[in-house]
Amino acid sequence: MGAETARADSLAGMDPTTGLPVVGMVGGGQLARMTHQAAIALGQSLRVLAGSPEESAALVARDVVLGAHTSYADLAAFAAGCDVLTFDHEQVPPEHVRALAAAGHTVLPGADALLHAQDKRVMRERLGALGLPVPRWAPVGSAGDVEAFAAGVWPVVVKAVRGGYDGRGVWTVSSAAEVEPLLGTGTPLLVEERVPLRRELAAVVARSPFGQGAAWPVVETVQRDGICVAVLAPAPGISAELAEEAERIALRVAGELGVVGVLAVELFERTDGALLVNELAMRPHNSAHWTIEGALTSQFEQHLRAVLDYPLGSPALVAPHAVMANVLAGSPPPGAPGLDERVHHLSARWPHLKVHLYGKQPRPGRKIGHVTGIGADLDALRRDTAAAAGYLATGSSAEVAH
Amino acid sequence: MGAETARADSLAGMDPTTGLPVVGMVGGGQLARMTHQAAIALGQSLRVLAGSPEESAALVARDVVLGAHTSYADLAAFAAGCDVLTFDHEQVPPEHVRALAAAGHTVLPGADALLHAQDKRVMRERLGALGLPVPRWAPVGSAGDVEAFAAGVWPVVVKAVRGGYDGRGVWTVSSAAEVEPLLGTGTPLLVEERVPLRRELAAVVARSPFGQGAAWPVVETVQRDGICVAVLAPAPGISAELAEEAERIALRVAGELGVVGVLAVELFERTDGALLVNELAMRPHNSAHWTIEGALTSQFEQHLRAVLDYPLGSPALVAPHAVMANVLAGSPPPGAPGLDERVHHLSARWPHLKVHLYGKQPRPGRKIGHVTGIGADLDALRRDTAAAAGYLATGSSAEVAH
Repeated sequence: MGAETARADSLAGMDPTTGLPVVGMVGGGQLARMTHQAAIALGQSLRVLAGSPEESAALVARDVVLGAHTSYADLAAFAAGCDVLTFDHEQVPPEHVRALAAAGHTVLPGADALLHAQDKRVMRERLGALGLPVPRWAPVGSAGDVEAFAAGVWPVVVKAVRGGYDGRGVWTVSSAAEVEPLLGTGTPLLVEERVPLRRELAAVVARSPFGQGAAWPVVETVQRDGICVAVLAPAPGISAELAEEAERIALRVAGELGVVGVLAVELFERTDGALLVNELAMRPHNSAHWTIEGALTSQFEQHLRAVLDYPLGSPALVAPHAVMANVLAGSPPPGAPGLDERVHHLSARWPHLKVHLYGKQPRPGRKIGHVTGIGADLDALRRDTAAAAGYLATGSSAEVAH
Repeated sequence: MGAETARADSLAGMDPTTGLPVVGMVGGGQLARMTHQAAIALGQSLRVLAGSPEESAALVARDVVLGAHTSYADLAAFAAGCDVLTFDHEQVPPEHVRALAAAGHTVLPGADALLHAQDKRVMRERLGALGLPVPRWAPVGSAGDVEAFAAGVWPVVVKAVRGGYDGRGVWTVSSAAEVEPLLGTGTPLLVEERVPLRRELAAVVARSPFGQGAAWPVVETVQRDGICVAVLAPAPGISAELAEEAERIALRVAGELGVVGVLAVELFERTDGALLVNELAMRPHNSAHWTIEGALTSQFEQHLRAVLDYPLGSPALVAPHAVMANVLAGSPPPGAPGLDERVHHLSARWPHLKVHLYGKQPRPGRKIGHVTGIGADLDALRRDTAAAAGYLATGSSAEVAH
C-alpha cells in the first residue's frame, strides 16, 4: 500500500457531492473569505467556523457554522464535519488545538507548530535555540526586569506574549514607570531591544505535510503607526544575498517547526543590513495578499494545497512588481460618497487596479479591504495603490497618502 | 442632481450589511459559480437562483434561492431581493425577461438585447440587417425548404433556433430525408451553408450601461465534435487586421443591440480569410475562462462591473499567451484514481497550471472543469493543458489528448 493510498484512507469523510475532502477554517475573517474564494477553483467549498453571520467569510461562504473559537465543544462539533482543520487566526487556545488532534482530527498547522505563532516567548526561545537571528529580549515579571534589560538605554519595546496584532500588544516605553500600567493585566510580557530599522520585510513560504516548500519573493512591508499600510513585492533593491537569507530563514523555520500551510516570517532589516525575525504567522498573511494577482499561485490556494496535502503550486511572479495597499477605514467627511460610489469612481480612475473588499463595517482604523496593482513601474504602482486605497477608505482624495 | 446620484437612487435596496447593491444571477451553473468567486473581491455575495442545491454555484454561494428559471413566479420572487438581475444561461423565456423589466426590475442584459442570444433566427436577421457578415441561411418549415436551400450542394447545417449549446441542436445533413426526423419537435429550425473553415474564433467584449466597451484579445476556440476543447489566447498567428475586424464586429454588435455585460461573439474564419458571425452569448463564456489568470480583469469581474454600472476594468494581458483546456468528464477505467487523487497528481506534474473544478457529477462528456496555463511558450502550454485536462477527466494518461 503506497503513501497515496494511506493518505486517502486517513481522510475522515470526503464531501459526498464533490468526492473531495472538506477543509474547515476556524475564524470568519477576511483570510477565510479569500481562502473560500480560492477554494472554489479547487472544487471545494470552505467550511467556516464564524462568531457571527456578519463576519467577512460568513457573508460569502455556503458552509458556515456559528460558534466560538474559544469553546472546545464548538470546535469539536465543527471539526466533526471536516477532513482537515485549519485557522484564520492565532486565537484558538493552544490546549484546544492539542485536544482536537488528540481526538483524532487532522489539524494543520499542528499544535506544536502553531504554538510558535501564538506565543512570542515560546517562539523567541525556540528560534534562539535554533541559532536564528532574533532581537535581544527577556521575559518580564516586573518593571524592574524592564529597567534591568534597558540598562539605561531607552526606549525599549514591551510586548504581550499572546494576542497582539496590528500594533496592538506592542508598547515602546522610555522608563520603568511606563511599564507599570501594562503589568497585572494577566497577559505575560516580554521586553525587546528597539532595533535600529532600515525597513521591515516579510518572507512568506508554504510547506506541505511531505516537507515540500515553496517561497514567494521576499517583500517589503511599509508600516505606519505599527500597522502595515503597503506591501512591495519583491522588496525594492534587495540584494540577492539578503533575499536568499530571508527565504532560507523562513524555509528553515517552516521545516524545524513542522509547519503545514502558509508561514509568514516578519523580519527586521537592521540599519547595518542584518536580518532579525520579528513575528511568525501560520496562515495566509496580509504581506502576501499581492499573490492573488501577482503570482501564479496565491497564498490562499497554496495554504489549501498544503493542508489538503496536494503538491504546492508554482509561486512564480506574473509581473516584475506587485504592490498592495491596505484600505484602513477612515472617518468619511460629511457628504462623502458611499462605498458603492467610491468603488465606481475608483474603477474609473484606476481601471488597472484590483479591489478587494471584505464586507466589514468601516470602523475607523479597521482593515476593510485592499487594492493591488501589478506591472513594471514600481513608483506608479505605489502612487496609484496608495491613492486608490486612501480614496476607498474615506471617499476623500484630500486624505489620500502619496 | 448628477448622474451618479440618480443612479444610486434607482437601486432597489442595497445590502444593509455591505452598503453595496445586490446582484442576482439566474442559473446555478459554473458561470454563476465563477461569478460568485469574482463577486467576493468586489465586496459582493452573488445571489443565485438555482434549480437544485447540488448545482455548481449553489455548492459555494451563501445566497442561494431554489426555483425554476422557467417560472415567472420564481423569477419575480428572486428579483425582489436583488438590485440587478443577470443570467448564467439563455434559457429564461424571453416573455419572462420582458415581464420582469416591465415590473420595474433592472435586468441586464435587457430583454431586447438578450433575445439575440436566445433566438438564432432573430439574431441572423438583425445582424444581416446591420450589414454584419453571417453565413448564408434560411428559415426551415419543411424538408423541401432545406432541399431548396441546398440546391444540390450538400451537406448543409440545420440548427434549432432556440435552446442549443455545446453541439446540441446542430445537425449536419446530407439529404432532405435526414431533415424529416428533426421536424415536428416543436422547435423552429433554420438552415445554413456549411462554411469552409480555417478555424473558429471568439471575440469577447464587455459593455457598460453608459456604453463603455472593453475587448479582450480575439481567441481561437479549438473544437472537437462540436464542443470547444481548448481556447488559445490570443488566436495564434492572427493578423492585426483580422483581429481588429473581429473586435470591431463584437463591439458593434454590443452597441447596436444595447448589450450590458459580457458579450461573446463566436466567429468562423473561412478558408479565404473572411469572418462570419456564428453565435452570440450575453454572459461570461467558455471562450474567456482564460481571463481569470491571463488578463488583469476576468470576464466574471467584468460582467459584474458592467451590470453594477461600474466603469470596466482593464482587459490587458498579463502574459504573452494563455491556454485553457476544458475538462470533459470521461469514463474512468476500473481502478482509476478518484478526483482528489487526480488533483494531487496533476499538481505534482504541472505545478504551473491552474485547475478549476465546478463541483459537478462527472457524467461522460460533461464539462466538469477547466485547466489554464499562462506563459511565453504556446506549444508547451497547449501540450500541458491538454494533458492535464485529459488526466483530470479520466485519471488515465492513456486518454490524454496531445
